[in-house]
Amino acid sequence: MSIITLLTDFGTDDEYVGVMKGAILSVNPSAAIVDITHEVDPQDLVQAAYLIRSYPGYFPPGTIHLVIVDPGVGSDRPIVAVERQGHCFLSPDNGILTLLVKEGSVDRSVTVDNERYFIKPVSRTFHGRDIFAPVGAHLSLGVDLKQLGKSVDPGSLCVLDIEEASVDDSGDLAGNVISIDRFGNLITNIHRETIARFSETRGDEPLSIQVCGERITGLASSYSNGRPRELLAIIGSRGYLEIAVNSGAARQLLKAEKGASVRLLR
Amino acid sequence: MSIITLLTDFGTDDEYVGVMKGAILSVNPSAAIVDITHEVDPQDLVQAAYLIRSYPGYFPPGTIHLVIVDPGVGSDRPIVAVERQGHCFLSPDNGILTLLVKEGSVDRSVTVDNERYFIKPVSRTFHGRDIFAPVGAHLSLGVDLKQLGKSVDPGSLCVLDIEEASVDDSGDLAGNVISIDRFGNLITNIHRETIARFSETRGDEPLSIQVCGERITGLASSYSNGRPRELLAIIGSRGYLEIAVNSGAARQLLKAEKGASVRLLR
Amino acid sequence: MSIITLLTDFGTDDEYVGVMKGAILSVNPSAAIVDITHEVDPQDLVQAAYLIRSYPGYFPPGTIHLVIVDPGVGSDRPIVAVERQGHCFLSPDNGILTLLVKEGSVDRSVTVDNERYFIKPVSRTFHGRDIFAPVGAHLSLGVDLKQLGKSVDPGSLCVLDIEEASVDDSGDLAGNVISIDRFGNLITNIHRETIARFSETRGDEPLSIQVCGERITGLASSYSNGRPRELLAIIGSRGYLEIAVNSGAARQLLKAEKGASVRLLR
Repeated sequence: MSIITLLTDFGTDDEYVGVMKGAILSVNPSAAIVDITHEVDPQDLVQAAYLIRSYPGYFPPGTIHLVIVDPGVGSDRPIVAVERQGHCFLSPDNGILTLLVKEGSVDRSVTVDNERYFIKPVSRTFHGRDIFAPVGAHLSLGVDLKQLGKSVDPGSLCVLDIEEASVDDSGDLAGNVISIDRFGNLITNIHRETIARFSETRGDEPLSIQVCGERITGLASSYSNGRPRELLAIIGSRGYLEIAVNSGAARQLLKAEKGASVRLLR
Repeated sequence: MSIITLLTDFGTDDEYVGVMKGAILSVNPSAAIVDITHEVDPQDLVQAAYLIRSYPGYFPPGTIHLVIVDPGVGSDRPIVAVERQGHCFLSPDNGILTLLVKEGSVDRSVTVDNERYFIKPVSRTFHGRDIFAPVGAHLSLGVDLKQLGKSVDPGSLCVLDIEEASVDDSGDLAGNVISIDRFGNLITNIHRETIARFSETRGDEPLSIQVCGERITGLASSYSNGRPRELLAIIGSRGYLEIAVNSGAARQLLKAEKGASVRLLR
Repeated sequence: MSIITLLTDFGTDDEYVGVMKGAILSVNPSAAIVDITHEVDPQDLVQAAYLIRSYPGYFPPGTIHLVIVDPGVGSDRPIVAVERQGHCFLSPDNGILTLLVKEGSVDRSVTVDNERYFIKPVSRTFHGRDIFAPVGAHLSLGVDLKQLGKSVDPGSLCVLDIEEASVDDSGDLAGNVISIDRFGNLITNIHRETIARFSETRGDEPLSIQVCGERITGLASSYSNGRPRELLAIIGSRGYLEIAVNSGAARQLLKAEKGASVRLLR
């Protein structure tokens, strides 16, 4: 059995995701389809670009990942298929794959042009149904990337100007809140490894974290550290720094929004 | 493997949908169950009636479709099973199937009376679990419609008075917003074919569309047509006219609600 | 094929549930995974404790149920695996299983300590992915409970002080609203059997139910009983008393919240 995952901004209020599953199962009736989430903020390519690093590693090699946040659907933006560490990604070439491209982990990539695998006529508004779903299903049946279209240099894929956490002029490690989860945890773009490098410069001094006018000292080892309602910082399950509250919601306590500044003081 | 789709207004906050899946898998452990959506507005039969035309065509023949918006659950409204173009639909006989019945595409229909396929005792509040799920699962195993109950004339199925888009006294083609999707696109009841017939009367003149006091000229070929924040009209993936906004949400820009009038001017 | 159900408070806006499914399928590619709901109110153990009685009975024996509402994730709270009537439950030992323990239906239980079945390194924030998912998948492949850790007396499992409906000093049967479903139905903790016992003391007198200052007489046999917008009381699909409104939402009509008092008058 082969696995196809779906990451989109389609929501689940409409029939869109269900229709895609029908289109997949019509081609490969034994595909196991897994929803990652369909609640990416509409057209938020940056949020999707970060999400893409959080889940594929927990699926077996051979998994096909459809990644569809596609404000340019129906325009002339290409669709690409990308191979990376035994996994395959299908997405619009609009920057969603930025972090994979930047880390240099893409093994090969092709444009998706071969209409033989499309549902026709292809609509102008729903390539998820008419291109991504059937092409992904054919890939899951063993079709090779090179049958989809012509090879493209991974280095030429569209890349977004995603601001990564970095040490700024003041010597602080400056990052941002990238997304806020259901528990109100603020998920930043400050990776565990970036913190490790930054910490080396500080010796035994515990970290001092500034967010929304509040100060947090040191990293917690679980969400239930400290006292109830106490603010804490922790390395979350994606490997990025999160701001959380014991038995509460940081979003609410700090009145924080996506994009809020988070600084590790020098 | 056989496929069973679920369209309901149950939402996913409660255990209802999961319980139905348990009841299905208890009868047919190898059924592939696909959620279309569970977010039909509570008890909105008209919205469901339109949705029913959007997804079955993307599933293979032999698919069983459970369609459950059922304000009369536990009353004496019948449940029916309907065959159409190789697909089977199970629903309350309350008008959900209106558009299928009106287009004359129902091949045969029966009432669902044979308690042999029910989970007993049948609750008064949750026929999804006690009737629809197990009956659907038995159908997916090859049980024939005629084993469920007695034949009924498709013409005698319950039909709602659904207002379809039509040319009114003024000569305009008058329709309505039927639903609003996650992107804020306004989905109307004006079908591509209705527009084609209307356009024939107008020669080369581009369409002029009036909605919420705004005027749109011509049809766009993609959501990214025109300038950012510009209003546009487009044939959506269901085949119906949609009002959208390039990089924005028409719902918000127009402060539109379900039911809003949309007119193609003569 | 073996079935694994998921009940969590993770929501579906993030990748959490999808990642768990990847971790399950990596161990058992043919597991059928069923979402019960991921919308338990964050960290609401009581709501989850009641939900746990509503769905397992509709799944076949051998089903594995992951039940994860886990404010103490990463702390030293144990994880337990529990066998009951041929089903297996995996959960934090934090009281989620209270009602199963109280009814004395747990056949055996073990702590989940054997790291051989974990994904390593185990994160401090996401045991759903690193422990529950892979352990559940191994159970679905036939691993026995005793391979997970050491036996614990079911009587020593953590139990919450869940207030059950009972006859108070005034002679009334006093209960509460435990949850409110998508239709605005108020679901109480007053079980059908508790009502039956209470009714015996009242002879032929119809029930008189008091909620939010309103009075309801007798039990309805369907949601469409009475007149539109009329308040009604009914035994819901979980076996508990519900307060509903014909063609409306009780939550809205009564401005009711979780916890509201519901009394059956003596």
